[in-house]
Amino acid sequence: MTPEDAMALAIAESERVRGTTSPNPPVGCVILDEGGDPVGFGGTQPVGGSHAEVMALTAAGTKARGGTAVVTLEPCAHYGRTPPCAEALIEAGIKHVVHAVSDPNPRASGGADRLRQAGITVESGLLGEQVSKGPLRAWLHYARTGRPHVTWKYAASLDGRIAAQDGTSRWISSETSRKEVHDLRAKLDAIVVGTNTVRLDDPALTARDAGGMPLPRQPLPVVVGMSDLPVGAKLQRTALHLRTHDPDEVLDVLAERGVVDVLLEGGPTLAGAFWRAGRVDRVLAYIAPALLGNGPAAVLDAGVSTITDAVRLTVQDVTMSGPDLRISAVPQT
Amino acid sequence: MTPEDAMALAIAESERVRGTTSPNPPVGCVILDEGGDPVGFGGTQPVGGSHAEVMALTAAGTKARGGTAVVTLEPCAHYGRTPPCAEALIEAGIKHVVHAVSDPNPRASGGADRLRQAGITVESGLLGEQVSKGPLRAWLHYARTGRPHVTWKYAASLDGRIAAQDGTSRWISSETSRKEVHDLRAKLDAIVVGTNTVRLDDPALTARDAGGMPLPRQPLPVVVGMSDLPVGAKLQRTALHLRTHDPDEVLDVLAERGVVDVLLEGGPTLAGAFWRAGRVDRVLAYIAPALLGNGPAAVLDAGVSTITDAVRLTVQDVTMSGPDLRISAVPQT
Ligand SMILES: NC(=O)c1ccc[n+]([C@@H]2O[C@H](COP(=O)([O-])OP(=O)(O)OC[C@H]3O[C@@H](n4cnc5c(N)ncnc54)[C@H](OP(=O)(O)O)[C@@H]3O)[C@@H](O)[C@H]2O)c1
Ligand SMILES: NC(=O)c1ccc[n+]([C@@H]2O[C@H](COP(=O)([O-])OP(=O)(O)OC[C@H]3O[C@@H](n4cnc5c(N)ncnc54)[C@H](OP(=O)(O)O)[C@@H]3O)[C@@H](O)[C@H]2O)c1
Repeated sequence: MTPEDAMALAIAESERVRGTTSPNPPVGCVILDEGGDPVGFGGTQPVGGSHAEVMALTAAGTKARGGTAVVTLEPCAHYGRTPPCAEALIEAGIKHVVHAVSDPNPRASGGADRLRQAGITVESGLLGEQVSKGPLRAWLHYARTGRPHVTWKYAASLDGRIAAQDGTSRWISSETSRKEVHDLRAKLDAIVVGTNTVRLDDPALTARDAGGMPLPRQPLPVVVGMSDLPVGAKLQRTALHLRTHDPDEVLDVLAERGVVDVLLEGGPTLAGAFWRAGRVDRVLAYIAPALLGNGPAAVLDAGVSTITDAVRLTVQDVTMSGPDLRISAVPQT
Repeated sequence: MTPEDAMALAIAESERVRGTTSPNPPVGCVILDEGGDPVGFGGTQPVGGSHAEVMALTAAGTKARGGTAVVTLEPCAHYGRTPPCAEALIEAGIKHVVHAVSDPNPRASGGADRLRQAGITVESGLLGEQVSKGPLRAWLHYARTGRPHVTWKYAASLDGRIAAQDGTSRWISSETSRKEVHDLRAKLDAIVVGTNTVRLDDPALTARDAGGMPLPRQPLPVVVGMSDLPVGAKLQRTALHLRTHDPDEVLDVLAERGVVDVLLEGGPTLAGAFWRAGRVDRVLAYIAPALLGNGPAAVLDAGVSTITDAVRLTVQDVTMSGPDLRISAVPQT
């Protein structure tokens, strides 16, 4: 197996554990034996558990000796909750390490140097973009900035409305899109809405399967705003209620709780506040092929008053989600 | 050459003359000789001129004898401004005719029957969808309904705004998209806007090349609304000004003038009126990857007050136009 094929499998491991590892990165690792055959797979365990390299080395056992470790993130060199992965790789007799992205975290980095000191060849960058825009996207942002990564997700009609004139919005987007959002929720740490969305929609903000059953992993529901939640609201007992209007305060509190990956689910008022604060890192728009012609728009007051101040984005991906368009875009820097 | 390859060339001929033939259809024809080699190409000439088949037969001369005519529309059988194409094909000694779509026009149809009576084999439907959604789309609609085909084109931000809060809109969409629109204008018969767009933007509604020079063919500019156009407005001398609020009245007047293919360029008030009247046959949305968060939306009052009444569309095509998304959609029937 080529290192590239092995990295594709390591990425799949990364993706598999995404949503279960924060504040640690969801890393994937594949061990190839001396002959290049895969002999161990592993993904990061929940906080306090083993890292991906240790999981994969354990699976490989003595077959790891003389082999190659293919891993989505540079192995760590520091003593944290668990011993450094670099040491585990050296002890297991690994001869080559290939990683997709380097660790931006100064505390953890130095893994590649430590490995080289021990006579291991280290290669960096294989499928790096796929990893940094994929399973490690949110964590890399968090490691670089100290702030959770924010994906603003909304569902709108082609003419940009998130509800009809009378406020009804069930359903703008297709069943396929709604299912995709539930799967997405299970891969994230927290979902954020404003008090008015709670008042009007009474959402549960849980990740559910097609039959309506909760998925095994649930993100933390967060409500932002000064008002009390209505008595009997589904979120009244489950949600973290943050009485603030400042997106940075929200992100600070969430970072302290180990939240790395946030889904901002609106509405338009809260979305506007996050845009004005420059705290949206990615847009995920589900655009239904429909026109409403009236009703609230997706974002209210993004701080733009004239065309030259428009918030410019770069489209990273456009796909169909059933009949809907799914657009992923990031702010231009 | 296969009939399919020949049809692809006939479609290119069709596309080449689109915008110059109304109220006649922009047809393309390729003549293959007995051995299957292309020996003549032709497209419909402007009103009063020859049809595509006659152009292609003239180019082929005696090489047409025993050959095949590949044509985007069923050859006509009636005596109009020009003699019927079916007779010209019979006289030229054509043995096979392959056409993409049948003529829905009862006056012109019967071409296939007439050819068969003369011992010619006739095949219908080759690349039919490509033709009926492509160069003959507007004309087929016109032939079936008696009304010009209306494409509503707009440029908006991802959040559905066609201008910023202060009314500025130059430019929301990219240079690539704007160039595409100029090319599109040259392929259509008329462009329609409301009086308020004239008042605010003073557009010329001409089709220009990248250097700003007018393209050879220009659509008829049409302004709809009761108010007088501002003195000195670019459209004051050039436009047909229709003092009505009724889209059907607009389309009736245009049909009488031989207009088949209309581009509705807004603004949101006039677009809403066309939607409420059910007179939009296709949407062409240029969605710029930008957020405005305030400012006018693409369509105002499409007659929808609650979500179940949403105007549902089917997306036919999504492409990138520079950094912008270009979405082509049709109303669901
Ligand atoms: N289609 C979709 O994707 C989608 C998603 C979500 C919601 N929605 C729709 O959105 C509508 C609700 O919209 P909305 O904008 O009113 O809801 P919202 O943004 O969820 O909530 C607005 C509230 O957020 C609080 N808030 C927090 N930070 C703020 C700030 N910086 N500035 C101002 N307020 C701040 C305020 O609450 P306090 O007054 O309590 O301080 C404010 O009233 C509903 O109809 C819902 O269906 C649609
Ligand atoms: N981004 C884009 O694609 C795009 C395209 C075009 C325009 N725009 C923008 O749109 C803005 C203008 O918007 P707008 O909606 O005011 O312009 P509009 O739709 O072009 O013009 C509105 C006028 O149309 C007339 N009208 C015709 N039929 C009507 C009906 N059934 N009901 C009501 N009025 C009818 C009325 O004129 P009378 O009062 O004279 O009767 C009305 O005032 C400008 O800022 C322009 O830049 C953007």
